[in-house]
Amino acid sequence: MSTNQATIQAPKVVNGIEVDKVMSVINNINADANNGKWQFRSINQWTGSTQNQSEFNDYLANNGENISHPKPFVLEADEPLLLGGTNIAANPVEHLLHALTSCLTTSLVAHAAVRGISVEDINTSTEGDIDVRGFLGISADVRKGYQAIRITMKVKSETPAEQLKELAMFSPVYDTVSNSLPVDLVIEKY
Amino acid sequence: MSTNQATIQAPKVVNGIEVDKVMSVINNINADANNGKWQFRSINQWTGSTQNQSEFNDYLANNGENISHPKPFVLEADEPLLLGGTNIAANPVEHLLHALTSCLTTSLVAHAAVRGISVEDINTSTEGDIDVRGFLGISADVRKGYQAIRITMKVKSETPAEQLKELAMFSPVYDTVSNSLPVDLVIEKY
Repeated sequence: MSTNQATIQAPKVVNGIEVDKVMSVINNINADANNGKWQFRSINQWTGSTQNQSEFNDYLANNGENISHPKPFVLEADEPLLLGGTNIAANPVEHLLHALTSCLTTSLVAHAAVRGISVEDINTSTEGDIDVRGFLGISADVRKGYQAIRITMKVKSETPAEQLKELAMFSPVYDTVSNSLPVDLVIEKY
Repeated sequence: MSTNQATIQAPKVVNGIEVDKVMSVINNINADANNGKWQFRSINQWTGSTQNQSEFNDYLANNGENISHPKPFVLEADEPLLLGGTNIAANPVEHLLHALTSCLTTSLVAHAAVRGISVEDINTSTEGDIDVRGFLGISADVRKGYQAIRITMKVKSETPAEQLKELAMFSPVYDTVSNSLPVDLVIEKY
């Protein structure tokens, strides 16, 4: 243990998040806007029938800096029995709900942390309505994806709901889903 | 073993999918369009810092029929160390890539199956570019979510790539991400 305890400053932790770490990323990007360019990526392998899995090994931060995850994150997908699946894992539209609600939660908590706003608890209910006539190709007039998503976040905090909502809406997945994003899909045969 | 083997018809299986099961869902909806109304839903709990988890217990099919999963599917989320996280699980924008690529894969395989098209292998690379100046609130002019997503599916099949792409694009998550979807977010304080 250091004898210079007086010089050691405890990290500022709000909502369990070390605020200094987030501030150092922000400072790094303020110094060079190119450091804001990040990339996330996956490899997905079909494993038969309605099953497949994605592996996340690394990501790029700071305009190309490759950062490995401590171990690959592997995510499974399947479909319910009713859709001809084997139901061993959440299906893709369920994974989308997780992406969306987890992102709103983390965005709220992290943006609250850097503002010194304390949050004690968050519990979120999410419902996504889908008319499967679109996906199944029964009706070309019916949207294939969700027609509506409703999210109710119950937040224990002394900060007004309106302000908490502004923090949650920094969410990248909320933005991606709420607003259109052209996805470039290429199929290569082999 | 049954002695009436002549009366037993083997299920038609293409790409590992029992086509009859999918056709029976389609027939059920053709009989009553309301049976196409489904709902997926989750409960998400913040578990501290940048961690949270979603639980999927059931879904609604056929305009309100509650169908439980065999056991709840639990999905975790965290953030990389660089963003002040603890990096024990994929982060929300990674989960979005999994939702998207898993959905394209399953849509391709299932739609191929009902058309009798054989698929031998699918391996998919996905990249999502994000400028974190948006999420971090550094620049209001920068989109918070992904700015571009590129997907390359390598498919082993005798069917032309163009036709395979048409099948993949039945994907509900592809539709949800590619086209805008207003998300209704309510924050309730307690």
